[in-house]
Amino acid sequence: MSKFLGKQAASLTPYTPGEQPQGKRLIKLNTNECPYPPSPLVTKVLTGQDTATYRLYPDPEAGALRQKLAERYGVSADQVFVGNGSDDVLGFSFMAFFDRGDTVSFPDPGYGFYPVYADLCGLRANLVPLREDFTVDPHALASSEGNIIFANPSAPTGLWLERDQVEHILAANPDRLVIVDEAYIDFAHEGVNSLPLLARHRNLLIIGTFSKSRAFAGLRLGYAISTPEIIAGIERIRYSFNSYNVNSLTQLAGAASLEDEAYFQSSLEKVKGTRDRVAARLRELGLEVLPSAANFLFVAHPRLDGHGFYTALRENGILVRCFGHPRTLRFARISIGSGTEMDTLLSVVEKL
Amino acid sequence: MSKFLGKQAASLTPYTPGEQPQGKRLIKLNTNECPYPPSPLVTKVLTGQDTATYRLYPDPEAGALRQKLAERYGVSADQVFVGNGSDDVLGFSFMAFFDRGDTVSFPDPGYGFYPVYADLCGLRANLVPLREDFTVDPHALASSEGNIIFANPSAPTGLWLERDQVEHILAANPDRLVIVDEAYIDFAHEGVNSLPLLARHRNLLIIGTFSKSRAFAGLRLGYAISTPEIIAGIERIRYSFNSYNVNSLTQLAGAASLEDEAYFQSSLEKVKGTRDRVAARLRELGLEVLPSAANFLFVAHPRLDGHGFYTALRENGILVRCFGHPRTLRFARISIGSGTEMDTLLSVVEKL
Repeated sequence: MSKFLGKQAASLTPYTPGEQPQGKRLIKLNTNECPYPPSPLVTKVLTGQDTATYRLYPDPEAGALRQKLAERYGVSADQVFVGNGSDDVLGFSFMAFFDRGDTVSFPDPGYGFYPVYADLCGLRANLVPLREDFTVDPHALASSEGNIIFANPSAPTGLWLERDQVEHILAANPDRLVIVDEAYIDFAHEGVNSLPLLARHRNLLIIGTFSKSRAFAGLRLGYAISTPEIIAGIERIRYSFNSYNVNSLTQLAGAASLEDEAYFQSSLEKVKGTRDRVAARLRELGLEVLPSAANFLFVAHPRLDGHGFYTALRENGILVRCFGHPRTLRFARISIGSGTEMDTLLSVVEKL
Repeated sequence: MSKFLGKQAASLTPYTPGEQPQGKRLIKLNTNECPYPPSPLVTKVLTGQDTATYRLYPDPEAGALRQKLAERYGVSADQVFVGNGSDDVLGFSFMAFFDRGDTVSFPDPGYGFYPVYADLCGLRANLVPLREDFTVDPHALASSEGNIIFANPSAPTGLWLERDQVEHILAANPDRLVIVDEAYIDFAHEGVNSLPLLARHRNLLIIGTFSKSRAFAGLRLGYAISTPEIIAGIERIRYSFNSYNVNSLTQLAGAASLEDEAYFQSSLEKVKGTRDRVAARLRELGLEVLPSAANFLFVAHPRLDGHGFYTALRENGILVRCFGHPRTLRFARISIGSGTEMDTLLSVVEKL
């Protein structure tokens, strides 16, 4: 380690992102990417740019994109923040709403980046164990300490809380900020998203991403929706770190994606249809599959543990992901690919 | 302010980026953008992408781009870091090499983001005044406290230190990290860049950007070059904040730009030629123009102060920038635009 490294930086355990193999031979079901391209309108806008788009700085306020997002979600533009992927939004939010030594509570296991942000910001992480059935415990979260963050639908399980359960957490804690990370919300049924709660609860910060449902993983676009005051708080950090955080092409592409609701819905329907079909078939084959409101399945093989299942699939050309958390060693996470990719997966599982 | 805001976040004074007017009627000479497009190879790669580039996550290691940068600068790939603009690289570097309460020394006035990062990271900022002639004082920096950061060529003046002056700072302080922000280095003469010092000094971190000289302001690409150990330190922060910080299109575009050295050099020559011609003419017209090794001029009008000059130019359709620092209230900063744009500038100045 460099002798110049700060003590804080030296003590971190950074996040390990899912593998992005640079060769192309594996069927890639490990990072919850969308198997379908973004709307043709996105391609059109990306490939039709004047070079002025490249050479001039982006609009630091991302005005046009935020306006489109505001219209899509029925809020005002000052209730919308955009970032370089939702990790950017999460990182800025941790920096905005926590001081060193504060406590943050989140479910365990959950999204692996929350403990990393907690570490980076010098916070005490209060891990709230999942219930026996791997669902997030809204009562335990509601009676925990400090600000709260959780993914809904959950990572890495795909399980979810219904809106009234989220509301219970919000209503019980008007003086604690509750961050709901809705990275997978577009794959869930209507009763899951917490957007309708914004009108009644001033302590709700919703974070979302275009990476999964809008096929923007490579383009990087995340967002937050909350009260104007909370959004202004995140903006303070952005203007203290990287004022031009969303590049010009992504701003244009994001706005184009929001213009094509029909394409978006049809892409979602395909992914959800594939998910439900594959889940049913895997269960028929004797695997345990947790109910999923996301674009992935959390799957336990009857004989192989998660890492063994991962290895067996990899030997057959399919890349999935497993995590080292002691509670879920039996499981591997399988992203929903195209119908053909998932048929290949099923035939490999049948063979195993 | 939101009641949820942390004390630290509430106390910040965020950076104010240069105005990005969304209408197109002004001649825009306020944010040091390149008046020429990036290489045609960049446009080709950006407009010729398969949609898989959009929907799949970027290579988190940016392997191909870092390799190209390493070749360009004669270092190894593990000596190169890439970020979402150089502000991203600066922010991560502050987080990597400083602990709260540490001191950081930098010239005053300088790039306006340094005090903001210092504030964000809870550092004591030791401002080292510019000399009477507005040059950075290498001896004062060398005998200052804590890690050191400065821009070379300097913001907002365009003045520079020669390599032996930079080396003096490095050699006097082997146990302090010296960050040289070379955002404008491509517009300077060969004796300014500190790259040759890397072989002799293990405490040098060079930060650069594609925004200015390679016309990438809208695409967002910054980089750092240093020892493998120092680069690994910045990577720790990136993997603790945003593992996919450089989007796929920008990675491809950056590599394409590096393949077209001839175009790059010809674009630089045009900008430098325009700069020297405009500086000479402004001096003829009685304005004070600091020597510049950058793509902008720091200019004082004989009758108008910086803000008055800014206002007069704006009324004539030309947008430049002025800063509120008491040492430089006489000056406005004028980016080098195209030959035609600068001819318009000169005719407006003649009229004033």
